[in-house]
Amino acid sequence: MKISANVSSMQFSPIRRFNPIAAEAEASGKKVYKLNIGQPDIETPTCFFDAVKHFDEKVLAYEQSSGDARLIDAIRDYNRRDYGVELSADDIIVTMGASEALNMTFATILDAGDEVLIAEPFYSNYSTFIKTVFGRIRPIPTRSEDGYRYADRKTLESALTPECRAIVCINPGNPTGLVLTRKEMETIANFAIEHDLWIISDEAYREYVYDGLTPTSFGCISRVADRLIVIDSVSKRFSACGARIGYAACKNEDFMSGMMKLAQARLCVPTIDQIGAAAMFRLPGSYYDETRAKYQARRDAAYEEIMKIPHVICRKPQGAFYMMIDLPVDDAEDFLMFMLTKFEDHGETVMFAPAPGFYQTPGSGRSEIRIAYVLNPDDMRRGCELLRLGVRAYNAVKRRAAS
Amino acid sequence: MKISANVSSMQFSPIRRFNPIAAEAEASGKKVYKLNIGQPDIETPTCFFDAVKHFDEKVLAYEQSSGDARLIDAIRDYNRRDYGVELSADDIIVTMGASEALNMTFATILDAGDEVLIAEPFYSNYSTFIKTVFGRIRPIPTRSEDGYRYADRKTLESALTPECRAIVCINPGNPTGLVLTRKEMETIANFAIEHDLWIISDEAYREYVYDGLTPTSFGCISRVADRLIVIDSVSKRFSACGARIGYAACKNEDFMSGMMKLAQARLCVPTIDQIGAAAMFRLPGSYYDETRAKYQARRDAAYEEIMKIPHVICRKPQGAFYMMIDLPVDDAEDFLMFMLTKFEDHGETVMFAPAPGFYQTPGSGRSEIRIAYVLNPDDMRRGCELLRLGVRAYNAVKRRAAS
Repeated sequence: MKISANVSSMQFSPIRRFNPIAAEAEASGKKVYKLNIGQPDIETPTCFFDAVKHFDEKVLAYEQSSGDARLIDAIRDYNRRDYGVELSADDIIVTMGASEALNMTFATILDAGDEVLIAEPFYSNYSTFIKTVFGRIRPIPTRSEDGYRYADRKTLESALTPECRAIVCINPGNPTGLVLTRKEMETIANFAIEHDLWIISDEAYREYVYDGLTPTSFGCISRVADRLIVIDSVSKRFSACGARIGYAACKNEDFMSGMMKLAQARLCVPTIDQIGAAAMFRLPGSYYDETRAKYQARRDAAYEEIMKIPHVICRKPQGAFYMMIDLPVDDAEDFLMFMLTKFEDHGETVMFAPAPGFYQTPGSGRSEIRIAYVLNPDDMRRGCELLRLGVRAYNAVKRRAAS
Repeated sequence: MKISANVSSMQFSPIRRFNPIAAEAEASGKKVYKLNIGQPDIETPTCFFDAVKHFDEKVLAYEQSSGDARLIDAIRDYNRRDYGVELSADDIIVTMGASEALNMTFATILDAGDEVLIAEPFYSNYSTFIKTVFGRIRPIPTRSEDGYRYADRKTLESALTPECRAIVCINPGNPTGLVLTRKEMETIANFAIEHDLWIISDEAYREYVYDGLTPTSFGCISRVADRLIVIDSVSKRFSACGARIGYAACKNEDFMSGMMKLAQARLCVPTIDQIGAAAMFRLPGSYYDETRAKYQARRDAAYEEIMKIPHVICRKPQGAFYMMIDLPVDDAEDFLMFMLTKFEDHGETVMFAPAPGFYQTPGSGRSEIRIAYVLNPDDMRRGCELLRLGVRAYNAVKRRAAS
């Protein structure tokens, strides 16, 4: 039986495809520190579970396709209070995580062969979302030495093609942790206006910026309101990845009309998770301050340990909870297989995401990995120590094999 | 800003697009009997809510992309116990309702321009799912006088084109309520083998067959195992539409590999709803017997009342909980607008789904509607009585306008 050529050309998630091998390592008794996936160990706010437990309808009915009215209200209040962004209820469609918002967004704006600009390395699932509707990614090249910055006029212009319909900004960045400056955001805004591009601003990590930086949103730049699609999610903000609640916000009526056709076709998003999410959006500002401090401590612990690896290249990221690390290894995927199947230190090893999956350009990122600093500082230190011990053991094996 | 030509060509849900007008009628104080949507008033089994309330993890974490292991086990046991169908864990991917299973299925098997056979009228969201990946529906024509039967060799052969990759069977049927006979299923199986087609069997209404018919599954026909994709959902079976839990089951490894790429990209399905769904799949067989009897009583009440409408054409459906009705009106959409904005009887009116949205062939189904017999028998009787009174009032207004 024939599978579509389109799906055949897609890759498995570089973050998830090694899961079965990690599961085997665990089954054999090893402890695996999971730095591969953005799954925080921070407790989900109890208000989520309280709201879910107080649900007392007898029939678990469909919700509106655009989302539960109480959740939409909470999203509006949160955007107004924390970012000064005014959204009407019609500007919001609640989705199954940011993932569905992105799937629906690309289906709404792209025809076959259309292209989307995105800085490389990028969150790999964009590739699948865009390919599903026969679109193509046009990568904006960056360099680890420059901290993966991309938002200058010259770099943007040289990546542009006539087929480009949109520019994606994951801000704060995944996998790079890059936080755009206000000047860079203005540059992107001007570039998008000049070339009539949609701006897709993936702000799932909005609040998680460090070293005193102020959280922001593309929604604050009002002159792009008719071309701006903000993608957001409760997964990372509230450590509620399993709720699968996100949303797309946009003030362009044609766009929202297209989105609504797709939203109606899939009927709605789970009812009780929406009720729980509404409660979380009403958490006070102190929640973000406390959680931000936790991530900053995790980042600092990880970075300190990572810098002990001889010949490593790593810049301290200022946002999200990911760190790109250029390791002194030939092949990060082969190194990961080594770590999961051969290496152990006191019965422990570490898992990470090899970077080639975050690049579209063949051969890029071979020695790079992404880690997520989602575990408590002690676990982060131990995970990064295992990386250092692993690099040494791996290169020793390589040298023996070569001699 | 440009929206994709593809999404522009899609329609809004014929089941949901009149919701805002119904909401206005309700805001004005009218009671609206909602026969437009398959939202049962039957209580969701309490085991769902009990399981949800006993969830006691501190972190609401991502689930596996393929689904929660306990839910997959429960789905396997249910299929074995009730249908004699053996599925391995690798044969199942849990999805956000049947809707996501269908979105992912068409993305996995279709390339741009590929076609899918489906009997017309069909559940309208198929059109959106298939168009999203640039596929096309090839409708198999049916006639209300034949009870919408389509599964004979000649009818199937004459609809086939070289571009067809799959045949969809919604069984029991939505919107027609048609239940395939075993002979018809064998005919479809042979036809699919001969022309190398996938069989997509949408069995969301499996248990709801009446008049002593036995529930069945395409999974019972083992010679199509390598080309069969079963789509299923808890929404209708357990009156749990707001849980948004479904699954795709298939024994073809290439297909499941493609599905897994898409499943990994959207990460996972909500965690607590999966736990609730697992409990429902473990309900005893008596649950289905009781619920089936309720729907049969609702169907009988509705049908009896519908047959009082002069000049109506309607066949008593044998499955699902929908009924197609050919009314003595010129235009079912105009009639619905009349019912929501002008008509009332003792402050009450009724909402239904106009049938043109279930046809792809232009001009078809103009005088037909679909009702869902999801309300208790008294409400069904009253809803259908309002239809009868409405038809009389609508045609009287029409006659006055014409004279």
